[in-house]
Amino acid sequence: MAVNLSPPRPEDLLPVKGVKLGVAEAGIRKAGRKDLLLMTLAEGTCVSGVFTQNRFCAAPVQVAKEHLASGGLPRALLVNTGNANAGTGEAGIASAKASCDAAARLAGCDSRQVLPFSTGVIMEPLPVERIVAGLPGCIADLREDNWARAAEAIMTTDTVPKARSRRAQLAGGVATVTGIAKGAGMIRPDMATLLAFVATDAPVARGALGALLADAAARSFNRISVDGDTSTNDSFVLIATGARGGTVIDNAGHPGFAALREAVLEVSQGLAQAIVRDGEGATKFITVRVEKGRDEAECADVAYAIAHSPLVKTAFSASDPNLGRLLAAIGNAGVRDLEVGRVELYLDEVLVSRDGGRAPAYREEDGKRVMAKSEITVRVVLNRGLVATTVWTCDLSHDYVTINAQYRT
Amino acid sequence: MAVNLSPPRPEDLLPVKGVKLGVAEAGIRKAGRKDLLLMTLAEGTCVSGVFTQNRFCAAPVQVAKEHLASGGLPRALLVNTGNANAGTGEAGIASAKASCDAAARLAGCDSRQVLPFSTGVIMEPLPVERIVAGLPGCIADLREDNWARAAEAIMTTDTVPKARSRRAQLAGGVATVTGIAKGAGMIRPDMATLLAFVATDAPVARGALGALLADAAARSFNRISVDGDTSTNDSFVLIATGARGGTVIDNAGHPGFAALREAVLEVSQGLAQAIVRDGEGATKFITVRVEKGRDEAECADVAYAIAHSPLVKTAFSASDPNLGRLLAAIGNAGVRDLEVGRVELYLDEVLVSRDGGRAPAYREEDGKRVMAKSEITVRVVLNRGLVATTVWTCDLSHDYVTINAQYRT
Repeated sequence: MAVNLSPPRPEDLLPVKGVKLGVAEAGIRKAGRKDLLLMTLAEGTCVSGVFTQNRFCAAPVQVAKEHLASGGLPRALLVNTGNANAGTGEAGIASAKASCDAAARLAGCDSRQVLPFSTGVIMEPLPVERIVAGLPGCIADLREDNWARAAEAIMTTDTVPKARSRRAQLAGGVATVTGIAKGAGMIRPDMATLLAFVATDAPVARGALGALLADAAARSFNRISVDGDTSTNDSFVLIATGARGGTVIDNAGHPGFAALREAVLEVSQGLAQAIVRDGEGATKFITVRVEKGRDEAECADVAYAIAHSPLVKTAFSASDPNLGRLLAAIGNAGVRDLEVGRVELYLDEVLVSRDGGRAPAYREEDGKRVMAKSEITVRVVLNRGLVATTVWTCDLSHDYVTINAQYRT
Repeated sequence: MAVNLSPPRPEDLLPVKGVKLGVAEAGIRKAGRKDLLLMTLAEGTCVSGVFTQNRFCAAPVQVAKEHLASGGLPRALLVNTGNANAGTGEAGIASAKASCDAAARLAGCDSRQVLPFSTGVIMEPLPVERIVAGLPGCIADLREDNWARAAEAIMTTDTVPKARSRRAQLAGGVATVTGIAKGAGMIRPDMATLLAFVATDAPVARGALGALLADAAARSFNRISVDGDTSTNDSFVLIATGARGGTVIDNAGHPGFAALREAVLEVSQGLAQAIVRDGEGATKFITVRVEKGRDEAECADVAYAIAHSPLVKTAFSASDPNLGRLLAAIGNAGVRDLEVGRVELYLDEVLVSRDGGRAPAYREEDGKRVMAKSEITVRVVLNRGLVATTVWTCDLSHDYVTINAQYRT
């Protein structure tokens, strides 16, 4: 059951002029569920993407990168669930390209203007013929106000669809930013998380769009972890249709850049946090904040050491303030010259540890009170610099084991 | 329930001349169980140790390192369970030293000739007075044939005591090597694992003893993982009493060095594997063998990426051949220039993947047959070099979550 996460209400999701979405039941793995999504993009739309660093990166990731690099502006995104088309070798590349060919014929564009995305079981052949058969259904369903159904069509072990909208005030009017994402397990994005698509109707040039994407990825999808496993298929795509008009945002000094960056970041963080809230078996949403570090890297190392520790995560699951495990995780972060005597550890507002040991005023009942909550902040103050970072994660419960034991059944 | 692991039979454990062991019920955390061990060492015994790299390393680890570096030959090892004396700041150091003082008075040596070791809950004050009160019981119990009871006295969440003996044929007769170890969770040793003590009656000089220790650690305790969490208290100590006599083994060229290295390695590997077999919640014992890598580091990175992946571990727990997760883990090992098209993946003798995808001859039923076993070898052939390494791990089951949710209750 997801932690304090409701499905988006369709009426809260703002259409993005220039983006249409259509879904279908293609029966890729299971019958009777939406599992295919086609997004079409208006002419002139600019697209930027970041992808998994997993060396076994999936065939669709390889093809999407190749198509993005080919220089033509993308006109469609094709997304399937039920099959990751990863660990499928040369045949997988051919299948991804065949899917793009079919979508291109229906959408009236070149095959290289279609970007493919897949998610689901790894190392099984992609059933291309089912995707091809499902595509006319997607075409018939294409609408600008279809974001909620699209969020549903890309789910795998997700229990709640994930979508967010924000408005950004630009010179000459308001721009819209709407995004969807999926993911619940194999979540420890290295560049971006498994399938997130964020679109705006603001006009943005390619370089500025890449900067917005990198900023949002670094502070949202690249700062979450469910289980520390980086997926083969992670992809985060930012789309700017320009359909709202106005001057093109082409650099960080443009008057609209900051407002748009803020809106893109808010949508991305909302989606990234939704993935953690709906993490496999999650019962708690945990914010790990590391402060006063020397650099971003060491703050992230400490935060992820906590976020990835099975012992920390099972203690959270049990609401047990076995907080020495947090110290062990911090000591285990690979920051070789860390002076543990300077580290302060807080659970919400409760000071748990300083001077290398338990804080004199700490009482077990204070720890118990915080641990019983469903939203908890772990704050580590390193006291050796000026940099801070935040990582979001969840606990490790029996349901995680159950879900992943039964994943293919 | 441990995987194919029986308690050692006392009669199989060979006494090591010069080492006496005595245990007591000190009531450190719970009443009615042996939780205190004193090992006394004959005069002239040489001792070498490696310790955790966790920055929050425990007070006893700090004191043991200091005492070892002080230059005097150790005469006693003092081991308690129920409390790790880690994350305890300056007070923890004082407690560890007070325990050594008490042991030294009874053993008739200097306090710096006592090495302290602790294991149990982190960030709680060590009850020194209970240890002091328990020590006379240990003294009264001191015997050379007490290894089995000693193995029992150092257990925490272990379900089976761990001890091994081997003989080594040296010039002029046979030497004995006997060791004990404990550990079941927070197991991903960086230098050595939580409390392993191996002793021989062969005469070994300090430098040669350090070489034997480093070799054994690298191929045993430093090659196992239960949950990827490196403990604050890991310590692996090699003891040479010299009581059997003969020429001192003082370098790797000495005729006895190779035989003794083999015996020490066998004892250490047996103990390390026993820790994995008794890993918290373990139902399967998994050998991860990575071959034809460029160097030891990349082989270990790939092996640990598999051994640490919760998705791989839950698939093993469920006996589900969801083997794409193994590819994802390999791709996730941080070997940036890995050519996935050259990688071969075997489950026991079954070729699962090559050319970046599923092997044409692979059949699901073959995967199922191997996954149903309690002992499984995952073999990854990188085909880019000549180096191989092996890591031992276990699966991630419901019981791991249960054990760690209830650890302090």
